Amino acid sequence: MTSTTQARVGTRGDSPRLLPSYVAGAWWTPERGAPVLDASTGEPIALVGSEGLDLAAAVDYARTVGQKSLGALTFHQRALVLKALASVLSEQKDALYELSTRTGATRRDSFVDIDGGIGVLYSYASKGRRELPNSTLLIDGPPEGLSKDGSFGGQHIYSRVPGVAFQVNAFNFPVWGMLEKFAPAFLAGVPSIAKPATPTAYLTEACVRIMVDSGLLPEGALQLVSGSVRGFLDHLDVRDRVGFTGSASTATALKVDDAVISRGVALGCETDSLNSAILTPDAVEGTPEFDAFVASVVAEITSKAGQKCTCVRRVIVPVEMADAVISALSVRLDARTVVGDPRADGVTMGPLASIDQRDDVRSSIEALIAGGGEIVYGSLAEPEVVNADGSVSASVGAFLAPVLLRFADADADAVHRIEAFGPVASILGYRDLDDAIRLANRGGGSLVATIAGADPAAVAAVFAGIAPFHGRVLVLDRDDARSSTGHGSPMPQLVHGGPGRAGGGEELGGIRAVKHFMQRTAVQGSPAALTGLTGEWRAGAPSVSTGEHPFRKPLSRLRIGDAVESGSREITLDDIEHFAEFTGDTFYAHMDEEAAAANPFFPGRVAHGYLLLSWAAGLFVDPAPGPVLANYGLENLRFVTPVSPGDSVRVILTAKQITPRETEDYGEVRWDAVLLNQRDEPVANYEVLTLVSKE
Amino acid sequence: MTSTTQARVGTRGDSPRLLPSYVAGAWWTPERGAPVLDASTGEPIALVGSEGLDLAAAVDYARTVGQKSLGALTFHQRALVLKALASVLSEQKDALYELSTRTGATRRDSFVDIDGGIGVLYSYASKGRRELPNSTLLIDGPPEGLSKDGSFGGQHIYSRVPGVAFQVNAFNFPVWGMLEKFAPAFLAGVPSIAKPATPTAYLTEACVRIMVDSGLLPEGALQLVSGSVRGFLDHLDVRDRVGFTGSASTATALKVDDAVISRGVALGCETDSLNSAILTPDAVEGTPEFDAFVASVVAEITSKAGQKCTCVRRVIVPVEMADAVISALSVRLDARTVVGDPRADGVTMGPLASIDQRDDVRSSIEALIAGGGEIVYGSLAEPEVVNADGSVSASVGAFLAPVLLRFADADADAVHRIEAFGPVASILGYRDLDDAIRLANRGGGSLVATIAGADPAAVAAVFAGIAPFHGRVLVLDRDDARSSTGHGSPMPQLVHGGPGRAGGGEELGGIRAVKHFMQRTAVQGSPAALTGLTGEWRAGAPSVSTGEHPFRKPLSRLRIGDAVESGSREITLDDIEHFAEFTGDTFYAHMDEEAAAANPFFPGRVAHGYLLLSWAAGLFVDPAPGPVLANYGLENLRFVTPVSPGDSVRVILTAKQITPRETEDYGEVRWDAVLLNQRDEPVANYEVLTLVSKE
Repeated sequence: MTSTTQARVGTRGDSPRLLPSYVAGAWWTPERGAPVLDASTGEPIALVGSEGLDLAAAVDYARTVGQKSLGALTFHQRALVLKALASVLSEQKDALYELSTRTGATRRDSFVDIDGGIGVLYSYASKGRRELPNSTLLIDGPPEGLSKDGSFGGQHIYSRVPGVAFQVNAFNFPVWGMLEKFAPAFLAGVPSIAKPATPTAYLTEACVRIMVDSGLLPEGALQLVSGSVRGFLDHLDVRDRVGFTGSASTATALKVDDAVISRGVALGCETDSLNSAILTPDAVEGTPEFDAFVASVVAEITSKAGQKCTCVRRVIVPVEMADAVISALSVRLDARTVVGDPRADGVTMGPLASIDQRDDVRSSIEALIAGGGEIVYGSLAEPEVVNADGSVSASVGAFLAPVLLRFADADADAVHRIEAFGPVASILGYRDLDDAIRLANRGGGSLVATIAGADPAAVAAVFAGIAPFHGRVLVLDRDDARSSTGHGSPMPQLVHGGPGRAGGGEELGGIRAVKHFMQRTAVQGSPAALTGLTGEWRAGAPSVSTGEHPFRKPLSRLRIGDAVESGSREITLDDIEHFAEFTGDTFYAHMDEEAAAANPFFPGRVAHGYLLLSWAAGLFVDPAPGPVLANYGLENLRFVTPVSPGDSVRVILTAKQITPRETEDYGEVRWDAVLLNQRDEPVANYEVLTLVSKE
Repeated sequence: MTSTTQARVGTRGDSPRLLPSYVAGAWWTPERGAPVLDASTGEPIALVGSEGLDLAAAVDYARTVGQKSLGALTFHQRALVLKALASVLSEQKDALYELSTRTGATRRDSFVDIDGGIGVLYSYASKGRRELPNSTLLIDGPPEGLSKDGSFGGQHIYSRVPGVAFQVNAFNFPVWGMLEKFAPAFLAGVPSIAKPATPTAYLTEACVRIMVDSGLLPEGALQLVSGSVRGFLDHLDVRDRVGFTGSASTATALKVDDAVISRGVALGCETDSLNSAILTPDAVEGTPEFDAFVASVVAEITSKAGQKCTCVRRVIVPVEMADAVISALSVRLDARTVVGDPRADGVTMGPLASIDQRDDVRSSIEALIAGGGEIVYGSLAEPEVVNADGSVSASVGAFLAPVLLRFADADADAVHRIEAFGPVASILGYRDLDDAIRLANRGGGSLVATIAGADPAAVAAVFAGIAPFHGRVLVLDRDDARSSTGHGSPMPQLVHGGPGRAGGGEELGGIRAVKHFMQRTAVQGSPAALTGLTGEWRAGAPSVSTGEHPFRKPLSRLRIGDAVESGSREITLDDIEHFAEFTGDTFYAHMDEEAAAANPFFPGRVAHGYLLLSWAAGLFVDPAPGPVLANYGLENLRFVTPVSPGDSVRVILTAKQITPRETEDYGEVRWDAVLLNQRDEPVANYEVLTLVSKE
């Protein structure tokens, strides 16, 4: 942690300070702001406001300076910046953890937010280098032939949008929320403006400050607006992307804004969600699935004091098992829940983020009761809490003890409509699997559901029924009960989001999210034109196969289209028999003329496909030590025409794609391989993957 | 053509009839309707109305009967229905061509609409069987490991939405428009309700009638609403999809509807678009690119009388070449354009679809003139036209001759805002490539742009600049000038749609559009659970490798997870040298101990990868004739650990995916192959593709 950061992050005991924003390459401090308070103690932490901030300038800075600096980097280079940022944040995370307690987060809660956020950076750093080319365009899908003579084809290409990724986050994950939106936009090459929620903006600011102070961020790649930004959409248009996490009502206001409706701003939303956990009938008391289910529900309700959009809200169980489930949940909640200031030893559940939030949750519980719910665990009363010094007293912070409700009428509207955004869940009994599916889907589209059970047929039936209404489904059983990452944790590898009520957006999901910041364009043209635009050689484009063998060229001199055309080699029956004997592959198509001829695909005995591949390597290889270091794989092999004794084969190998590695002195070269017979018919098509030195 | 169809399609000379709708499995005729007229002669053709139609019942029918009947079919089975429908339509297309003339379409125009539409069915029929599994779920991307011990992982799965695909089409492509929306929804397993535009609804009705009469459509898979359907969104929710092609103003009304904003209806729009054609500076007069550019612009303006959302509206050329371009366009328009009734010989351009449309286009031209445009070819005057009998007279139909405008100020707002939806384009001069890019992008997001030029650097620069604003880009040069499918023709293989002003939607693009009718869900679970849900074997899931060799099992008995574990075989230096000699692959890593050891990836001389593959086949093969017919390919091969002389290898082959073919007595089996050394380290991973008999 740098001394600058130390001085600014507002650790406990500081007097409240005006929280700055980071715009147009500099920190900017407002003249006034609204106080935000420590969730446990009510002490003021910071004054948050953005009055006077020049948002238009920030957007312009992103579109010009940010676009330029990110555009100068390839996907791999951006991925390495993400990795370095993750490393710096990891080194300095203690300061973030300390500050995080002021939001009401326990150490475990902070782990999800802080280490979870850093983990997103590491994941994108890794996927960016493993799954993207070392360039700036992303090719989507295979080439499409559009003319019989091969002179016209199509290809889909993703290119980054030329605007800004404006990111509005919720209060509950001030670090993860910012980083999970930033990472894919950054990897795509699109600058971000992060707008955290006011109640926990000071933690986001601390995280951004570490990132800025690291000196790793390309100019304009990340800006921070601390405080509300009404009307931000006025500054955006078809070039820009908005990612929003928050309430359905705010999302609705954004969705009907003229920027979205008429100016083409692409908006992704992740909103309220009435997630469910479903227990299948086989998972009776005493089974590992029952235990895993109960443990999962308790963990969901209490972690972050239930303030997660992915939290379990509806516990859907066989009606005859409802009592047993309530009983088991109650026992575990009693045994595991210590409510208090997260700075106190032994506390397992902190306060809600603010008194306002606590009051909102109480109102929602009252509405659930009015709608037919009955409290079967906990109460709305002020809980006694453990203070930071270990004393126990009446609550002064935003505390609320866990509450379970039961709905005798599982179809009551309230339970499928009202999201109590705290340590609250409702138990619903179902009659049969169709009823369970129907109840889960009454959420109108959710982020996530758990199916706990060991009966494959029941799990499959429930999954088939609920999948179209859910962005993520966790199957919990004895095999993964211990290793599961949990119902409530979005993983960077998997999409996070859900249809309908859940907002209709998608985030994360690895490279899928990178594409959200890119426009997919279908390109049509000649093979030469498509080769030029994609940077990948296309069949039919010019190639160079004279002079130096391409295996003698290091990456510094190798060009796509560099090729080698081998001489021809005749295959005899002896060759086939010899190969069969040597390899043990005496499949009848190679060894028995009569049986082979009876096979619908062969004219008689034919050469082994592996013989052809092996000979092709012998034909194209340049054996002496040189820049080609290894053949590490092969892809998309298809045997097209059988090869009979007496046929000859030759091979054409053409450099198709060149991917230098940023951190090594070599890179990958993908070669297009075509094996032809003496009639110039294609015998096999495939791609050879090699590692080649840069020099 | 069936006699029923013959009697109903309303060929020329019939008195106007009330146009029926096809809902809930039956034809329904309204009591009244508005007349629609022959575009050339003004004769009434049909009365179109939907007053009294029970749309709620139609939606319910789709969600119940349609979902059920389509759910009983796999992707391949649905694809075969599409193929059969294409075949029936192809046989009976003469009736459609005849009726199409009444819309004002020339034979060439009708080809785009009718044969183009049939071509979409054929394309989806083919792609559905080549690119989708023979099941009902679509797996998206590779598995994601989520735990170190392999007991927990993730997978993305697409499953069809449980509602209806409601499809609102424009008047200009009554056959193609309906079929291009129907085909991907049908393949996904989602029933369609097609709502054609009133002026040409009679042609859509004729097409749907042929499809219904064929008996090929599963019950409820396609319904037709002839006539306006205000308020149709009231019936839809998160289960449903809406595809809209039409005006930006109507799209805006749909986008802010509560169904979309709050009930989670996914809406895809394809609206007005001010598409451009850009000539690069190298493509001067006399070059093949200049000629191709001029021919393309003339074809676009005149085909369908310019009534295509993909038509070229802005012709963007180097300012110094504007006169030459205008002159060449004028010469070609003079030489090629004969305006008249498409039934007359020699007519190359028909009327607009209706008098209303013609008047709209005239108003738009006047607005363009008011906004700074000057007519440099054609006029707003009533053209003389060739009538069906060959006579030439003043226009009685919806005729308008081609019009070219020039904007001295290329930045005039009007030309980047007003879409004259007829045979109209405007010429704009640019100063340099950046200026050309800026002008093209002022369209605010377009469906398509053409770049004509032979200079790769100029083409690449323009493409990079305009790609984020365009759904499709055609590169026109001497190589593809003859084989190009044209600026204005969306291809089923490529996405159709564009950002911003163009509506922000995507259609077609092969299987990409099928996914629009499916929800992507991330599934997390144990390997066994994921195997159960995906129908594909996952590493770590149970397998069966005792008893009968899986190569002896036909598809009727083979199950995913069936496996063979081979014995072990030691590799000697002699083996390596023998293989090198036999294949000719004397790469130094196999032949030269010192050089091999100097390679960063090898401990010394190592076995050829192809030797290992060949031996693996020898280890797993079951040689006698049996159900396994051929090894037709191999995928995703990676060599993980080098094999030195003295090492041993063995192989485990497990049935991963089974895809029976609908029309053959065999199918594809994909086998997971793992090659291990004597320390059980993975040596190579790959997938073996085989053809296996059903019995």
